[in-house]
Amino acid sequence: MRDNTRQRILEAGAELIHRKGLNNTGINEVLQAAGVPKGSCCFDDEETFCVEIVDYFSRRFGEMARPIIEDKSLSPLKRLRKIFMVFHNHFKSHGYASSCPIGNLGQEMGDLKGSFRDKLAEYLNQQTDVVETLLSEAQHAADIEPDLDPRETAIFIIGAWHGAINRMKVIKNPEPLEIFYKLVFEAVLR
Amino acid sequence: MRDNTRQRILEAGAELIHRKGLNNTGINEVLQAAGVPKGSCCFDDEETFCVEIVDYFSRRFGEMARPIIEDKSLSPLKRLRKIFMVFHNHFKSHGYASSCPIGNLGQEMGDLKGSFRDKLAEYLNQQTDVVETLLSEAQHAADIEPDLDPRETAIFIIGAWHGAINRMKVIKNPEPLEIFYKLVFEAVLR
Repeated sequence: MRDNTRQRILEAGAELIHRKGLNNTGINEVLQAAGVPKGSCCFDDEETFCVEIVDYFSRRFGEMARPIIEDKSLSPLKRLRKIFMVFHNHFKSHGYASSCPIGNLGQEMGDLKGSFRDKLAEYLNQQTDVVETLLSEAQHAADIEPDLDPRETAIFIIGAWHGAINRMKVIKNPEPLEIFYKLVFEAVLR
Repeated sequence: MRDNTRQRILEAGAELIHRKGLNNTGINEVLQAAGVPKGSCCFDDEETFCVEIVDYFSRRFGEMARPIIEDKSLSPLKRLRKIFMVFHNHFKSHGYASSCPIGNLGQEMGDLKGSFRDKLAEYLNQQTDVVETLLSEAQHAADIEPDLDPRETAIFIIGAWHGAINRMKVIKNPEPLEIFYKLVFEAVLR
């Protein structure tokens, strides 16, 4: 019962934070959207809630990415592109008006608190691990040059992606994503 | 006198927003930091204030970048690297704990308001123009390949920079910036 309430609050909070940003989302609004009475909030404080929200997005990212990573019918680079396309289609369905909730959370905070910063770093590393795994596979298949460092290149690509979706959100237009695919798959990954 | 007050409010606001984020910065705090009595605020509303804050950062960026762009004693690519290094040194002096205030503003808002979004887009275009100009010069000097599109490459590089500084802020470490230089100047700009 308690776990169910917790889950409903996380789902409602994730949806609201994704749409409006953390600082524009009040806890009462989250409880109302979750259909949970005031006073039933089962998080110790805002930091705990934020950390669990990142965990929630992180689990969803993992569930989305895993079957694509494991789909050996596609080349590693095709799988990598497909993962970005899943997000791209998600942004498209929201009119390109909202971007990565985790990136937003990191930006909203001034100087970030310890446990929350650790959690954001963990999520960025999770995304980076996925890209690194696929780049290593692509290197073994000789699809990209042997002198590219998969870890560094993955960090760069994840950064370029976050920058591209930020600009996409500002201009409400997918052009930065199209440029991202072109430069990553034609210039960086040779 | 009115212009002077306005300028002081903008400077104090810019400093606070850069350090703490927009949503954690109250107008009274800005007025206090500016030494301006409550009730003397000369901005019509928050949106006007935000638009002028972006203009303020934009002017400062222009003042910083112009002499570097015009320094023909350096190659175009060295000038480009130098512009990023000015920001890098600024972040370093703040312990890598704060990143681009404009990028932050764009991320803090949920779905952005019209005039503010236009202003953010203008600022991103200003940064892009600087990079594009230097890439075109580098192309004329045959320092980079003729098939790279300077505009698209500039959009990509600005995105990769914003992504790199976001990660830098989360991990409070310059590694993402080092990777940015390496991949941009060794892989993208061949």
